Amino acid sequence: MKTEKLDLLIVHKKLEEMDGWKIEEEKWLLKKYRFRSYLDGISFVNKIAELSEKENHHPFISIDYVVITLKLSSWRANGITELDLKLIEEYDQLYRKITEQL
Amino acid sequence: MKTEKLDLLIVHKKLEEMDGWKIEEEKWLLKKYRFRSYLDGISFVNKIAELSEKENHHPFISIDYVVITLKLSSWRANGITELDLKLIEEYDQLYRKITEQL
Repeated sequence: MKTEKLDLLIVHKKLEEMDGWKIEEEKWLLKKYRFRSYLDGISFVNKIAELSEKENHHPFISIDYVVITLKLSSWRANGITELDLKLIEEYDQLYRKITEQL
Repeated sequence: MKTEKLDLLIVHKKLEEMDGWKIEEEKWLLKKYRFRSYLDGISFVNKIAELSEKENHHPFISIDYVVITLKLSSWRANGITELDLKLIEEYDQLYRKITEQL
């Protein structure tokens, strides 16, 4: 169930509740996170990496100084799945944890 | 001296001695590193981050599962400098350390 491609209307509705997530090419979820320092961003990357291994679902991560971009899809489903929507909530939680500690 | 833009002929000559580095748009140095596991790649990213803070010179880093791409330039010089050439040697050393430990 969690690994079936979702209708994009469902995805759009979910993203309305969230902050900063965009859909690209109808199959990618993308968000840019900004940090106060480079090493805060690197801490976030490490948390994301740990979660990705646990879930065996690895987003593309790019590090442009204090801006970290995450890009996520389910390639097996060729689109966005419930798992992706669950994970982006967890990414946001990890971001809040790191930025609220400061 | 280390922060002046170098002639591209000098950069090309240096890259001939090295493995896998390419020049993009006449001002970027780019290389893709492949790892045996996701977490090896993440270890490499942490080493690169540590070095980048020490040198106050931060490459773009992208993580696509086991492939880590580094992209480097000196924006103040609007091109490639001696510092960039020194750093790419250090990146390769860090890569060798991680992959030889396995």
